Amino acid sequence: MKVVITGGTGFIGLNLARRLVLRGALTGPSGAAEEIDSIVLFDAVTPTARPPGLDGRVDIVAGDVADRDAVSALIDRDDISVFHLASVVSGEGERDFDLALRVNVDGTRTVLQACRARAGAPRVVFTSSVAAFGGAAMPATVTDTTKQTPETTYGMTKSIGELMINDYTRKGFLDGRAARPPAVIIRPGRPNAAASSFASGIFREPLNGEECVLPVAPETLVHVLGQRNCVEGLIVLHEADGAALGDDRAVNLPSATYAVSEMIEALKRVAAANGRALGPITVRPDAAVERIIAGWPTWTEADRALALGCPADESLDRVIQDYIDDFLGG
Amino acid sequence: MKVVITGGTGFIGLNLARRLVLRGALTGPSGAAEEIDSIVLFDAVTPTARPPGLDGRVDIVAGDVADRDAVSALIDRDDISVFHLASVVSGEGERDFDLALRVNVDGTRTVLQACRARAGAPRVVFTSSVAAFGGAAMPATVTDTTKQTPETTYGMTKSIGELMINDYTRKGFLDGRAARPPAVIIRPGRPNAAASSFASGIFREPLNGEECVLPVAPETLVHVLGQRNCVEGLIVLHEADGAALGDDRAVNLPSATYAVSEMIEALKRVAAANGRALGPITVRPDAAVERIIAGWPTWTEADRALALGCPADESLDRVIQDYIDDFLGG
Repeated sequence: MKVVITGGTGFIGLNLARRLVLRGALTGPSGAAEEIDSIVLFDAVTPTARPPGLDGRVDIVAGDVADRDAVSALIDRDDISVFHLASVVSGEGERDFDLALRVNVDGTRTVLQACRARAGAPRVVFTSSVAAFGGAAMPATVTDTTKQTPETTYGMTKSIGELMINDYTRKGFLDGRAARPPAVIIRPGRPNAAASSFASGIFREPLNGEECVLPVAPETLVHVLGQRNCVEGLIVLHEADGAALGDDRAVNLPSATYAVSEMIEALKRVAAANGRALGPITVRPDAAVERIIAGWPTWTEADRALALGCPADESLDRVIQDYIDDFLGG
Repeated sequence: MKVVITGGTGFIGLNLARRLVLRGALTGPSGAAEEIDSIVLFDAVTPTARPPGLDGRVDIVAGDVADRDAVSALIDRDDISVFHLASVVSGEGERDFDLALRVNVDGTRTVLQACRARAGAPRVVFTSSVAAFGGAAMPATVTDTTKQTPETTYGMTKSIGELMINDYTRKGFLDGRAARPPAVIIRPGRPNAAASSFASGIFREPLNGEECVLPVAPETLVHVLGQRNCVEGLIVLHEADGAALGDDRAVNLPSATYAVSEMIEALKRVAAANGRALGPITVRPDAAVERIIAGWPTWTEADRALALGCPADESLDRVIQDYIDDFLGG
């Protein structure tokens, strides 16, 4: 089988690709593990150097996810699976409404239309977000059946994606599944335009010996999921029996909620255990970031994802240790 | 002010136009009643003869709601209000997925973009539908905060419209409001492609001395709203103070639920009181219609609409009498 990962050179996309390279197979429509002979990472921006952890089965292709011809050329086999991760992120979507609609809505539709043109209803795993929830009527804890009244353009486009995934699946055009991750940590590299970018930066910059400027107060609650378990959750969703998902194909991924101050304490513990010095953390609240974060849910229940086998993090300390092992050479 | 009604020559559109002609004014952004000097009924198909009940202020324009130039030419003043009713209906949407997406999703976006291009955040009233609800997890009674997992392409497109209305409003691009009516009765003329078409036909055909072939069993529960109160509800929503709507701009319109057998009894009562003979009603279940209807909610709560002043029907007998008065010359 061929696996296409849109947004494939991003944080989740690359780690998903590395995991698929190691696995070598994925359970698809046949219900049995199928060998992966091709993985294509499709992205608007591609890295200048080939990222580590990939092998000869992996191709990197630059392109626009809303470009029908490019996407059709990508989704060119019937034995195909798509992880559709390409997306304008939350902060960027607030700054550029039209870009968010073009990439997140038109792009998703383009991907779904290309899958529909294939025989055999390909499996499509779409990354929605907890940002799909929001609004004055949002309960303190959101569940898989909480109404979605998002308070960001990003969240709006993710809700639209979920609706399309459900209906394309109901029509038999494809076999869609959607995941709503919280902030996924710990992203290596540089800060990005997501309002939740600090949830990685708070660990990453100090571990690099750099200053982290925190845009939120220490008592702010953030709900997060470690990168390894996010990737694993997407694979579990891909492999799940469609009947277990029923008519609503989207699930909250497992998450845990921490105060920023707890995140700092965990970082100090794990850094000490690894004999690593830390750069400073400076609190400098940013009203725009605080407003976006305040509009997101603080606690989520992930009953459906847990029942399907999507893993939850063991602890925050473990997530930090995983980052040191995966990205800082242990 | 100018009022544009998309889908303006349809059942609700024409009756809304007639009501606005009689009123002559509408409360808009200023908070005061503003005189209406122009009403444009925009529709894909326009009638060969000018419908009654309109006056010189009313123009009928044929066009495609997804055509940017046509819609921009229509929404050409800053003192404008839009009632966006144009839509592929439920049965048609199940038969032609692509048309439903083009008209209901792309068309709605085209209308919202044209409004965004005007100064002063025009008021836009969008007709969603109770078909936005559905799915295995749907409770017996849906409320304004029930999650939307629609089971028709029509419903999916209506949920997407609500999400866009909310976000365009949040961004200050326009001042949107959305109504979720149930089956609106009694539609004059001929049956249409809505799965709920029989909810009008069950009254209309017998009152015309014709046979009504019912596609559902007599014990089927149908929830309905009379045409007069649907139109009034849309006007109330237009005139409502935006703050009263908050961040979720969509409300269930008031409705009442009847068994088809109760509808037949009410018809017999009102026909007898008006000295009218009735054509026969023949039950001939249609699996496709029954499946769509079974997927819709049976009871809805309309707390928010009622609080805003959207009227509920007094009785089914009254709705039937209104139809005789409005469309059969009393």
